[in-house]
Amino acid sequence: MKTLKVPEATITRLSVYSRFLEYLDQRGIVTVSSGEIAQGVGVSPAQVRKDLAYFGEFGTRGVGYNVKDLMRYVLKVLGLDELWPLVLVGAGNLGFALCTYKGFNDRGFSIVGVFDNNPDKIGKKIADLEVYHLDRMAEIIALHNVKVGIITVPSHAAQEVTDLMVKNGLQAILNYAPVVLNAPENIEIRNVDMSTRLEILTFNLSKKDYNPVT
Amino acid sequence: MKTLKVPEATITRLSVYSRFLEYLDQRGIVTVSSGEIAQGVGVSPAQVRKDLAYFGEFGTRGVGYNVKDLMRYVLKVLGLDELWPLVLVGAGNLGFALCTYKGFNDRGFSIVGVFDNNPDKIGKKIADLEVYHLDRMAEIIALHNVKVGIITVPSHAAQEVTDLMVKNGLQAILNYAPVVLNAPENIEIRNVDMSTRLEILTFNLSKKDYNPVT
Repeated sequence: MKTLKVPEATITRLSVYSRFLEYLDQRGIVTVSSGEIAQGVGVSPAQVRKDLAYFGEFGTRGVGYNVKDLMRYVLKVLGLDELWPLVLVGAGNLGFALCTYKGFNDRGFSIVGVFDNNPDKIGKKIADLEVYHLDRMAEIIALHNVKVGIITVPSHAAQEVTDLMVKNGLQAILNYAPVVLNAPENIEIRNVDMSTRLEILTFNLSKKDYNPVT
Repeated sequence: MKTLKVPEATITRLSVYSRFLEYLDQRGIVTVSSGEIAQGVGVSPAQVRKDLAYFGEFGTRGVGYNVKDLMRYVLKVLGLDELWPLVLVGAGNLGFALCTYKGFNDRGFSIVGVFDNNPDKIGKKIADLEVYHLDRMAEIIALHNVKVGIITVPSHAAQEVTDLMVKNGLQAILNYAPVVLNAPENIEIRNVDMSTRLEILTFNLSKKDYNPVT
């Protein structure tokens, strides 16, 4: 497993900060302090300063950060100053929802190919995209220089799709199937579990007594 | 904002551990070491031990953890030894995907009511559920003793839905709309951004030089 210099929790927060900065920028706000960012997104000011310090010295003491500069820099750090074409395999409900999710386009992501192996789905339209057979994945990946794939197939098919994505040169995979995928070390894989965020809520609601098991 | 004794990152990892323990249990594996858990989920053994230590002493030195006991305990900590009925507002693509997402049922979550205010959607079926008008939310919440709601409406409608959920006694909200919601302090709100996980991948793929901004 690759080790990152910057913790993933920091990258996740940068993503949140960048949205808050966009929000401020749209409202014509020019400068912001770490305390205001902290309050806006619900973390401590020290955490904001620590996260931003990974990427150098920002801001002017007593004045704060320039909103536009910081926003552009954070987006650049996140790799969002370029466009990311994506392919998605699995034209089911979740695949459909992701293909029509407006939040992707806002962040520079664009699904350029949707694939399935179900003859009933091939040729159907999702938004502006025609669902193709998996046979055409190599062609679409080459055409658009795609590096990232999304898997929304059932668990039993996910490894096969992973192998195909790796064979076709993808470098990163976002996996929505609830299964652990095997891939070469140089392929970045992240799993998305739709229920994890719910479990944080139920943890907080249930607030049982955690009797030490001894 | 509420402060938790247990960091959210720990709860997220507990959720991951519990899935790995279920995986081992299904394969008849009886004991597991922190090192094996660490390797299975991709964190350090020290992190596994630290996370579990929040909830007391587990395991026997040199033998490891009993898989079934640890799995049950972690599920209990996460509040997943009980069933959680949910309501969902917003019968669009994402709402549809979540209503048919099998992973929820596996973890004790069950969507018992789907609501929309679009006359074209009301009365339609999603899986086994009929889409109701928002007027019926109070009735369904009371009937099933629902505490948690999911919001999958467009941004401009999300605050109104939040207010309605709070008014009807919900205690926690999972928000998929890309907007910051206002609610009383005692209401737990978590936002889900579908593109955050993608941004971790693009961060890793882009690996730019982070020239300090001075």
